[in-house]
Amino acid sequence: MNEASNTTHPFDDALELHSITPGVYLGRTSAPYNNMVGPFGGLTAATFIRAVEQHPDHLGDPVSLTINFAGPVAEGEFEISTRAVRTNRSNQHWYLELSQNGEVATSATAVFGTRRETWDDDEASPPSVPAPSELEAGGLPEFIAWARNYEMRFSAGALNEQESPDSAIALWVRDTPSRALDFASLTSMCDIFYPRVFQRLGKYVPAGTISLTIHYFATAEDLETQSDSFVLAHAQSRRFHRGYFDQSAELWSSDEKLLATSHQVVYYKS
Amino acid sequence: MNEASNTTHPFDDALELHSITPGVYLGRTSAPYNNMVGPFGGLTAATFIRAVEQHPDHLGDPVSLTINFAGPVAEGEFEISTRAVRTNRSNQHWYLELSQNGEVATSATAVFGTRRETWDDDEASPPSVPAPSELEAGGLPEFIAWARNYEMRFSAGALNEQESPDSAIALWVRDTPSRALDFASLTSMCDIFYPRVFQRLGKYVPAGTISLTIHYFATAEDLETQSDSFVLAHAQSRRFHRGYFDQSAELWSSDEKLLATSHQVVYYKS
Repeated sequence: MNEASNTTHPFDDALELHSITPGVYLGRTSAPYNNMVGPFGGLTAATFIRAVEQHPDHLGDPVSLTINFAGPVAEGEFEISTRAVRTNRSNQHWYLELSQNGEVATSATAVFGTRRETWDDDEASPPSVPAPSELEAGGLPEFIAWARNYEMRFSAGALNEQESPDSAIALWVRDTPSRALDFASLTSMCDIFYPRVFQRLGKYVPAGTISLTIHYFATAEDLETQSDSFVLAHAQSRRFHRGYFDQSAELWSSDEKLLATSHQVVYYKS
Repeated sequence: MNEASNTTHPFDDALELHSITPGVYLGRTSAPYNNMVGPFGGLTAATFIRAVEQHPDHLGDPVSLTINFAGPVAEGEFEISTRAVRTNRSNQHWYLELSQNGEVATSATAVFGTRRETWDDDEASPPSVPAPSELEAGGLPEFIAWARNYEMRFSAGALNEQESPDSAIALWVRDTPSRALDFASLTSMCDIFYPRVFQRLGKYVPAGTISLTIHYFATAEDLETQSDSFVLAHAQSRRFHRGYFDQSAELWSSDEKLLATSHQVVYYKS
């Protein structure tokens, strides 16, 4: 249940965009969603989704999003430009840029589309983890502001200062205060994992996402069913090589349906 | 060993681009790399990589590529426009479009970058499969032209007309005639898998890639080591839902190093 009151949820505050000219939106960084440096990447990704959703010509719901973190986003205002590169009968292809002072900080492409009933199958299964009620409430250190907006219960990969033989992380996550899941918040949760290299090495090292791709399976009805229940988020890296590693993630609904996957490539040095 | 002779390899013929104006290239579809309808998506992806490589201002080698198949590519000439959205010290962000008659058929973003020595680790392992010499030569049906340019030895997922309980596919693949692996051919091989829904249902159904993302781990030196040896390519889907499914793939070198991953979302109906 969404316990929305008369005040706006901080996530919706952070996503607020004002139309300047057709397809161009003005936004503002939001302190509650700051990362160590600049805004939480998940929020930036969600802001692109929200920009397309606000575009009067948009068609359908998100199918895929790729966001490239080209440079830092400074505290303050930013502009998001949206362009429908091509609109087909059942899908629409977007090119998006976030700029500050005329310089592109983040670029993205998105595909939105409509969905139809056809043959369906759940081939993969969620990882086997204890129920949220059986896990202790956890989180990230206090200085990572954005993480305070999420209730997290770790089954594997809670941040500590020990080296780990693998990079697997699994946690139940939901917004706090409570908020019903929508495409923007699902997008943001796709980036909920701190860089997997921290877990492997048991320490903070310079690391930053270069490119993040999300594939959406959930329909609007699937999200309505999920509402504000815990999402099971799970990620792992395959290879750390010459300054770049990957992390692939799955986000599962509380009734074991795959909502989205995300795949990112992350810059690091040790 | 690359057994290149004096004639050009068909793959290099297919990738040939002519600079028209700075950053804009003219190419032509190539019959040997046709798919059932239009060109093989892997070739289109490779053509984008080649376009950036030909750009005089390009920096480093591919780190990631996302290509969105927005509409059909007709037989004949096409234009590729390239724009460096932002250039940093160690990486460069590109936006790319393939157009015909002024209409965008395919859009893409790419990140190129330089790499450095730092902490390295191979966390994932390749699937356990027989050596190429222990497997029969296979392929795709004769009417899929592009597949005739690849030597394929299937360990799992050879195309037949039987329903399959899972979508896992694993094959050894290399160019035929022989050709040393480079970033363009690695890119193309990332799309070597016929749509996973064919394998599940044991029949051809309408299906087409909507968005394909590749993350590159291999450096130029890693590719030189691989040369024209067999690449182990392996893919699987997680979910088929309301007309879209995913397929995630890993491409491994003959000495068990992860060269690249690819993740695609594919439209289908049954």
